Amino acid sequence: MTRVCVAGAGSIGSLLAAHLARVTDVSVLTRRADHAQALRRDGLRVSGRSEFVAHVTASDDPSALPPADLVILACKGTDLDALASRLRGQFEGATVMTVQNGIGNEEVLAGYVERVIRGTTFPAGKIVEPGHVQWDVKGDTTLGPFEPSPAPFTDIERLADACTRAGMPTHAVADARGPQWRKVIFNAATNPVGALTGLTHGRVCERPDLRALVSGLVSEGKAVAAAQGIVLDADPEDLVDHAAKPEVGYNHKASMLQDVEAGRPTEIDYLNGGIVRFGREQGVATPLNEAIWALVKGVEQSWQQ
Amino acid sequence: MTRVCVAGAGSIGSLLAAHLARVTDVSVLTRRADHAQALRRDGLRVSGRSEFVAHVTASDDPSALPPADLVILACKGTDLDALASRLRGQFEGATVMTVQNGIGNEEVLAGYVERVIRGTTFPAGKIVEPGHVQWDVKGDTTLGPFEPSPAPFTDIERLADACTRAGMPTHAVADARGPQWRKVIFNAATNPVGALTGLTHGRVCERPDLRALVSGLVSEGKAVAAAQGIVLDADPEDLVDHAAKPEVGYNHKASMLQDVEAGRPTEIDYLNGGIVRFGREQGVATPLNEAIWALVKGVEQSWQQ
Repeated sequence: MTRVCVAGAGSIGSLLAAHLARVTDVSVLTRRADHAQALRRDGLRVSGRSEFVAHVTASDDPSALPPADLVILACKGTDLDALASRLRGQFEGATVMTVQNGIGNEEVLAGYVERVIRGTTFPAGKIVEPGHVQWDVKGDTTLGPFEPSPAPFTDIERLADACTRAGMPTHAVADARGPQWRKVIFNAATNPVGALTGLTHGRVCERPDLRALVSGLVSEGKAVAAAQGIVLDADPEDLVDHAAKPEVGYNHKASMLQDVEAGRPTEIDYLNGGIVRFGREQGVATPLNEAIWALVKGVEQSWQQ
Repeated sequence: MTRVCVAGAGSIGSLLAAHLARVTDVSVLTRRADHAQALRRDGLRVSGRSEFVAHVTASDDPSALPPADLVILACKGTDLDALASRLRGQFEGATVMTVQNGIGNEEVLAGYVERVIRGTTFPAGKIVEPGHVQWDVKGDTTLGPFEPSPAPFTDIERLADACTRAGMPTHAVADARGPQWRKVIFNAATNPVGALTGLTHGRVCERPDLRALVSGLVSEGKAVAAAQGIVLDADPEDLVDHAAKPEVGYNHKASMLQDVEAGRPTEIDYLNGGIVRFGREQGVATPLNEAIWALVKGVEQSWQQ
């Protein structure tokens, strides 16, 4: 693994690109030309949890980028299909890694490429301006093979090692579904409740009725994970309570609430929608996740009225 | 039954007051002084499904109204406790009738008066201006005794007969819970789904995922009714489909959606909240109604942020 291309220069893509550029050659595919220009001219600046400037190649045109052995698709789940289609034929033989929230992303990607890494990453930040990402929350990243179209495990280990050396602690594991399901169960139980009510995470957790709904959603997600033999690496219930603390995320507006307020498509199909689809495959009923999925899809549809 | 007082001059209160004033003496308690003044000066005009002007006594001060044998409390469920408290001691010995949406209203009222009529009414209209109500939708009214604090059945029959003669078809029945539960199950399954998504009733029913949620809510309501031995006089599922027709209510914004858009407290506690409470008493699980109840309470709370 010597040449990395990060497709998508949002906060996670930028954090990964900047760190990996400390240890290897990194190119960045941006959506906008001026963003690529800023990266080429000034480098990619990280502030907050770490402070440095990384040098990267950048373009808004995939064909203008150098060849890569590893491609990290760092877009939102809602854009994944379009991005993978746009990159088709561009990085023949490359290993491709997901970092999207939710589940079902690897399945989409496997329609386009042969070697897929299932990535789940907990760090969080925001883009301050083109070429400058602020790193707000530290956290681990876990990588593993996507079983139906697996990347070679030695490649995964090499990538995890590179990320860790670069300053983002990353583990290579044979079964990376545990962290992925822990994260999706947490997100699916909290994000849409904030989005449907307009409440911050802390306010949601203060109401016993809404906190009980969150627990109901968590329980269904755990049952679907258990039916697949997935061992969660932590209890999502603990994450819910931890995130509600004043010093953590009491005043945090869920990203889905931010999407709804801005009238942007949400990630609901990969969160509650993903849990429902995997539940159906396993014969596990998920009525609450189904209800929440339907309600958020209805909200999205109301913008078309 | 010779002297009626209608407390609350919204659309249903006004329709009942105007019709009953054709066959007996009717006084109206309004919230605002100018509304009472318009009623005293110009009478109460009905247009739409019927056209006439009725003469009524009116005041915004309960102590200024003549004595009454029957009091109809025609406020929203959210205002019932305050209104009943305000009228305490005003109509000693009178029979009191509910017309609120939902369930649990009679229980509140029985804390204040001894003889309660359980009323469920399907007609609908709107106030055009003070003193003028437009009658949009015809429908039956059903009256019966509230079992723990029952009004004498002969009084109920006499009132039903008066309403029918006055132009509003009304039935007196020994068990009026059937129509009441049919209506609450319908309202609880459709109103909050519109309120949470922003969709009209027709758009809700066009989406298979939301229509399935509506059916799930209906099923729980039916189970709670059945556990109490209540026989529904029609299937709420049929009402849902009927109301979605273009010539009926395809473009109708549920009243709860109108409440949410205006930032007004909703009737959720008497709709889904009522089904949950009666379900708990009967040992019937109502997880979807519980989820919807919590979400709408969360929306109401978000206005306090």
